Amino acid sequence: MKTIKVGVLGFGTVGSGVVRLLLEKREMLSRRLGTDLVLARIADQDLERPRPVTVPRELLTPRAQDILDDPEIDIVVELIGGLDPARDYMLTAIDRGKHVVTANKALLAHHGNELLAAATAKGVEIAFEAAVCGGIPIIVALRQGLAANRIQELFGILNGTCNFILTQMSQHGMSYAQALAEAQAAGYAEADPTLDVEGIDTAHKLTILMSLAYGARLDLEAIAVEGISRLDPLDLQFAREFGYRLKLLAITRDDGHRVEARVHPTLVPKGHMLSQVNGAMNAVYLTGDAAGPILLYGQGAGMMPTASAVVSDILDLARNLTHGAAGRVPPLGCRLALESTRLIKPMNDLVTNYYFRFAALDRPGVLSQVSGILGKYAISIAAVIQKGRVQGEAGTVPIVMITHEAREADALQALKEIDRLTVVSPPAIFYRIEDPHLHAAQI
Amino acid sequence: MKTIKVGVLGFGTVGSGVVRLLLEKREMLSRRLGTDLVLARIADQDLERPRPVTVPRELLTPRAQDILDDPEIDIVVELIGGLDPARDYMLTAIDRGKHVVTANKALLAHHGNELLAAATAKGVEIAFEAAVCGGIPIIVALRQGLAANRIQELFGILNGTCNFILTQMSQHGMSYAQALAEAQAAGYAEADPTLDVEGIDTAHKLTILMSLAYGARLDLEAIAVEGISRLDPLDLQFAREFGYRLKLLAITRDDGHRVEARVHPTLVPKGHMLSQVNGAMNAVYLTGDAAGPILLYGQGAGMMPTASAVVSDILDLARNLTHGAAGRVPPLGCRLALESTRLIKPMNDLVTNYYFRFAALDRPGVLSQVSGILGKYAISIAAVIQKGRVQGEAGTVPIVMITHEAREADALQALKEIDRLTVVSPPAIFYRIEDPHLHAAQI
Repeated sequence: MKTIKVGVLGFGTVGSGVVRLLLEKREMLSRRLGTDLVLARIADQDLERPRPVTVPRELLTPRAQDILDDPEIDIVVELIGGLDPARDYMLTAIDRGKHVVTANKALLAHHGNELLAAATAKGVEIAFEAAVCGGIPIIVALRQGLAANRIQELFGILNGTCNFILTQMSQHGMSYAQALAEAQAAGYAEADPTLDVEGIDTAHKLTILMSLAYGARLDLEAIAVEGISRLDPLDLQFAREFGYRLKLLAITRDDGHRVEARVHPTLVPKGHMLSQVNGAMNAVYLTGDAAGPILLYGQGAGMMPTASAVVSDILDLARNLTHGAAGRVPPLGCRLALESTRLIKPMNDLVTNYYFRFAALDRPGVLSQVSGILGKYAISIAAVIQKGRVQGEAGTVPIVMITHEAREADALQALKEIDRLTVVSPPAIFYRIEDPHLHAAQI
Repeated sequence: MKTIKVGVLGFGTVGSGVVRLLLEKREMLSRRLGTDLVLARIADQDLERPRPVTVPRELLTPRAQDILDDPEIDIVVELIGGLDPARDYMLTAIDRGKHVVTANKALLAHHGNELLAAATAKGVEIAFEAAVCGGIPIIVALRQGLAANRIQELFGILNGTCNFILTQMSQHGMSYAQALAEAQAAGYAEADPTLDVEGIDTAHKLTILMSLAYGARLDLEAIAVEGISRLDPLDLQFAREFGYRLKLLAITRDDGHRVEARVHPTLVPKGHMLSQVNGAMNAVYLTGDAAGPILLYGQGAGMMPTASAVVSDILDLARNLTHGAAGRVPPLGCRLALESTRLIKPMNDLVTNYYFRFAALDRPGVLSQVSGILGKYAISIAAVIQKGRVQGEAGTVPIVMITHEAREADALQALKEIDRLTVVSPPAIFYRIEDPHLHAAQI
């Protein structure tokens, strides 16, 4: 039976994990596959750096071309990260008829449609289990395990850095800056954490999950994104007082006509499974119209969890190769997915519950003025905390409230009007809430 | 392209769900598959019973043979349940070269090796996502998503009936009998609940999960089983006081040499994700040597969740059929799995933490006598609750304790000896604890 040969581009953290699994588990993997799975070549510009795995020198090359040009290599694993030259390498690999495994969510979110179209035209596959939630088998769940479902809604804690920071802020009352420093010290955040903390990485991953959930083109532009870098620990404390936890959620919901597509800090009831997802852990909570609610939880990053996902993809592609079944499952789960689009619900049309915090001058009548404006916009208050004489910044006291369901456009207009009151000190703070009980209470 | 034809044996609850999905989602499923997926025939002895789905009369037949004999039918879905005649039907279907989907865990646990061997010999596939945890995609996760991992340990809440009963007992202080009656009233328990409450159904499912986790033969006999029907609500309350919840867990753990295989009521720390799994929900928590800890959570039973899993299997087999790739993934994830066995660790060799409850006569020195015997067997106490004058049954007071790690044989010997003391009223109650913190404390 034919041996399957694998070439790895990028010998960094994840690359080292993949190489370790392919070398150390060669026998087990070959037993699963029924034929020999061989690590043929590893390319990295820097071959001198120490790595947590030892490889025979002859496997190493500083030139990606040595892998792309090798007609013997069946599967190319792209672990370089970033957009360039990863995109060029993938297109070249596809053009040479090689199957590709990647963990590169940014590349997929930005150029996935082009790459998948090229792969389909060439009859090769692109697999990307490792691009979302590291070791959690969410991609295979959506492409196969839940293939009989229409995904009605999906909530993801998709970025371990953000979740670690939020957990530190929530559990230890740290400021954002302190928590970020902790995350950097623990190796969970990079020196420049922008991609993570501004929600961009989460949006990349939501782009991929939405395409799989809906069998439609990747559409990064559709996603409204807000990060966690301006969070005040005060709001995490008030959220707790109301019985919530604050999480950076990726959210998509299908009303049958339009789909929501958003990434932002979100209040989640403390009894919900997503509130139990702490530290650097990741989770996806989704509802299928047949399967009902499903949670998948695990390590979303790190050398070995990500390598676990990469190698499961290698095995899957190798299984298709040995059976001549490339393209058995279309990359986005459906035929013609790349020709399909979903109508996105603009954020202004969103209907949800809100958390508001106002910095009020401590004078009589403030609450009545604020609630008067909310009433004008048909926003009704579900709960309120006003802490009497506790002095906040600039001699103000916080008024914090939870609303029943309201339209985002109305909420924004009301906040704008409230910010103009002389008795409050703008800007008003607001976060969105995902709470099925509050939703139900409104009906 | 060839149309794929499906025949369904058994038009009960799950059968109705499968039929509904195949009829209502035909277009979506065909779009995923790239060819038409057709429900060709449904067999059930009782065609008159009302059902939640309407089907064209000509699809229905009272004779399973009409499906087994039809050369046009590619995939047979066995939803009859029980061992006979399901086994015969499956063997016949296999013999005629048909692929089979089943939700029948009892049949797989008892006759799976024979059925899988027959299927392998004939070059057809048996798929069984629906046999474990209904809508949760655990089988595809083990066969594919986590295929690069050695599964180090796996804990499952695999039976919704038991979990519902335990949740009622724990949250509302109900007796077992009351909680069972509630479960029956809610449709979660059958009139004869034996298979569920005695842990047998859970053992069937653990048999399947172990085979997939270890790539080895199905071995129902290996599993030590204890159910929940003799549980006293008192122990659920004491478990709570110690910071635990009591769950019926399926447990397997691989020490590299031998594997544990057991089903019994187990104390789980209240902060652990498994403790958040309430009501009729199911979950599997496992640790892969690469992926780390993973939790999958969802509805483990019911018409549509189970149908979701069945139809995902139909789609998977259909994808193999259209690509001529039958046997792409061996049924137990590995080649030669049916020739492999794992050495089982006898329960006597188990090393774990224990919960003990003794009914002590309210006299001085009882605790010292009890702890003296425990000390003799090298069992050290981590925590103890002795409620002074609170009278229990027969004029006794409960002494409840949590132990550090001990060998099961020692624990049983110690309990036997304690039961002979004149100051306690036998039998002593004991449950096993799964608590990584307590384990770590011992090292």
